[in-house]
Amino acid sequence: LLSQSEVQRIVRRGVREIISEAEFITMLQSGRPLRLKMGFDPSRPDIHLGHVVGLRKLRQLQELGHQVILIVGDWTAQIGDPSGQSVTRPMLTHDEVKANAESYLRQFFKVVDRDRTQVEWQSQWFGQFTLADVIRLTSRFTVAQFLERDDFAQRFQEHRPIAITELLYPLLQAYDSVAIRSDVEFGGSDQKFNLLVGRQLQGMLGQTPQQCFLMPLLVGTDGVHKMSKSLGNYVAVEEPPNDMYGKLMSLPDALIAPYFEYLTGVPDEELAELSRSLADHSVNPMELKKRLAWDITRQFHDAGAADAAQQHFERVVQGRDIPEDIPQFAWAAGSAERRWSALLVEAKLATSVSSAKRLLGQGAVELIRLSGETQPVAGDAPAQDLRPGDVIKVGKRRFVRLVGP
Amino acid sequence: LLSQSEVQRIVRRGVREIISEAEFITMLQSGRPLRLKMGFDPSRPDIHLGHVVGLRKLRQLQELGHQVILIVGDWTAQIGDPSGQSVTRPMLTHDEVKANAESYLRQFFKVVDRDRTQVEWQSQWFGQFTLADVIRLTSRFTVAQFLERDDFAQRFQEHRPIAITELLYPLLQAYDSVAIRSDVEFGGSDQKFNLLVGRQLQGMLGQTPQQCFLMPLLVGTDGVHKMSKSLGNYVAVEEPPNDMYGKLMSLPDALIAPYFEYLTGVPDEELAELSRSLADHSVNPMELKKRLAWDITRQFHDAGAADAAQQHFERVVQGRDIPEDIPQFAWAAGSAERRWSALLVEAKLATSVSSAKRLLGQGAVELIRLSGETQPVAGDAPAQDLRPGDVIKVGKRRFVRLVGP
Repeated sequence: LLSQSEVQRIVRRGVREIISEAEFITMLQSGRPLRLKMGFDPSRPDIHLGHVVGLRKLRQLQELGHQVILIVGDWTAQIGDPSGQSVTRPMLTHDEVKANAESYLRQFFKVVDRDRTQVEWQSQWFGQFTLADVIRLTSRFTVAQFLERDDFAQRFQEHRPIAITELLYPLLQAYDSVAIRSDVEFGGSDQKFNLLVGRQLQGMLGQTPQQCFLMPLLVGTDGVHKMSKSLGNYVAVEEPPNDMYGKLMSLPDALIAPYFEYLTGVPDEELAELSRSLADHSVNPMELKKRLAWDITRQFHDAGAADAAQQHFERVVQGRDIPEDIPQFAWAAGSAERRWSALLVEAKLATSVSSAKRLLGQGAVELIRLSGETQPVAGDAPAQDLRPGDVIKVGKRRFVRLVGP
Repeated sequence: LLSQSEVQRIVRRGVREIISEAEFITMLQSGRPLRLKMGFDPSRPDIHLGHVVGLRKLRQLQELGHQVILIVGDWTAQIGDPSGQSVTRPMLTHDEVKANAESYLRQFFKVVDRDRTQVEWQSQWFGQFTLADVIRLTSRFTVAQFLERDDFAQRFQEHRPIAITELLYPLLQAYDSVAIRSDVEFGGSDQKFNLLVGRQLQGMLGQTPQQCFLMPLLVGTDGVHKMSKSLGNYVAVEEPPNDMYGKLMSLPDALIAPYFEYLTGVPDEELAELSRSLADHSVNPMELKKRLAWDITRQFHDAGAADAAQQHFERVVQGRDIPEDIPQFAWAAGSAERRWSALLVEAKLATSVSSAKRLLGQGAVELIRLSGETQPVAGDAPAQDLRPGDVIKVGKRRFVRLVGP
């Protein structure tokens, strides 16, 4: 039997909500190895720190003897959710799914224990699914119930299209829970509706309803939006050490405490102390951020690589002579066709396109990467391959830091 | 090439709406044999005059060389439409569908030409339908489009459940049109939405979109509601001659003209004349009703049976000495457990339950059937097996006629 404090460490830290917490604790204390379900969209094989919050919870439970079942969503990937688009995506080929699954698993097993993980493809059950199965499944829920899901409700309200197919998505995900007899499903808190449908469906079909672990959504390096690949505010788990360390050093101070909580093993008491010292300014946030960046870099590489990344940062990046408080420029990833001259004007580094072109012609413009690498900007080419955290330097003393949109 | 007046006879008489009439006329005049689609719900194998309106139109087109394709809806029958219930029905067994289809066809071929009819079961295509097929089909329409269908809109508005399965119904019916390459689909005007989905889907899949023939809904013998088995206001095509004739004689006068129009071959000019004479009271409606009842009885039996039914009616029913203008009692089929004493009170044939019981004890109560048969009502049993048109007689001079609810 787990102690009260061990249970608390499982159900509180890095968890937004458990439905139902009481039932989960009973399950946990029964001593039976639990089947922990996690879904994976094979059209998005990249894992970043936003996903790691949940993976760490899986790992924590594996260490108590529980079993992870990873669902390769080769069928739901066709539908997309919540897409906001009324088109389905083409079915990935078996080889594409396999390649993406291999890439995903390589990243997944950086956190999760391979020996206590079982991988199941949806095609094992949906490959044989008949129209009769679809009819049985769809007969159990109403249109109104599904239109209550936040994103559906909003799109319906705003007269934006919802394909009938999209109503199938939560049903298929729910059926996965039945197929693998899930005890606990894990998802971001924006997955609450889908996880609850699984819980209900299991009950309807005579299985013990799964418990739903809703994980907090990690805010990305921009300090504003949920971490996401498409917003460019992410730290990938396969990031090279210097980039990982550097990106974490660009975090706004407000994210230091949540990142420690969700992404490190720093004990709860120390976490509380650390939040206090940040609040009363008794610590330099830069020092805590270095500890955080070192800890996370060590997790995905090793202590040596983390040391080296820290030294690199201190030598090259901190030595770049970029002042602490330089202006920020909110830069949209979508505007990659824009030329440097236009970018300099928008970033208020030049007063007109012609003066911007003059500066570029004089070789007065430099791009300083997060890694510390400095690239001269020659001529008025399209300003491509920019990343949040990059600094544009004009002349000796004018700087602007790019931030996410 | 058909003459203008022949075309008008096809597109006007007994038709509520054609989508699109112009396209249909072009198809008709092309000389190509058309594939005329009609669906059949094998959970409801009984044909009444309400269905005959459409079947007569099929026959009319068959006589010009076109081909009927009858779809046995063994898959859609599981869903039900529009059910108002969120449960699906159990799948009928193959043998049940076969038995019901045989019964249906026996009735169907009383109107439709067997030699120009092809029968197709939905299981031929839906038996092999996969989840991928369902995804492809459901991706083409939005939830909002389907919730615009009148009955869905109303139920959604009133917070009554619509199972997600029910959204599949129009899609399956539409796919039938694709599977059999339908040129024209026939349905009641309440089927407009479903027929149009078929038309759209064919277009999306590169077929020539079907034309939609929407038939008028025939009002039943109660003169109020759409003819329907569950309301008891129907005339079945397998009704014995005396019953068929008698039921038609119980029609309200307002239905004489539409029944002539939709259910007989009386020429248009004569139809106009007949409506005029009813309007200016220059004809006794009873005489026209006899002609109508004779004509329809002849269609489903023969002239000899129609003659005999007419004689029976004149001798037995008209000879029953039931006055013309007796009170009507709106009787609900659902209240079959009600005892005779209660019924007599409700019908105002007795002032109290105790006086009703006294009348029953005295043998003063009789039930006179539409066929003319008279049954004494003995004792205070539950009042079962009543039918619209039956007359309750108390003593010598008091009558009440049962009408549909």
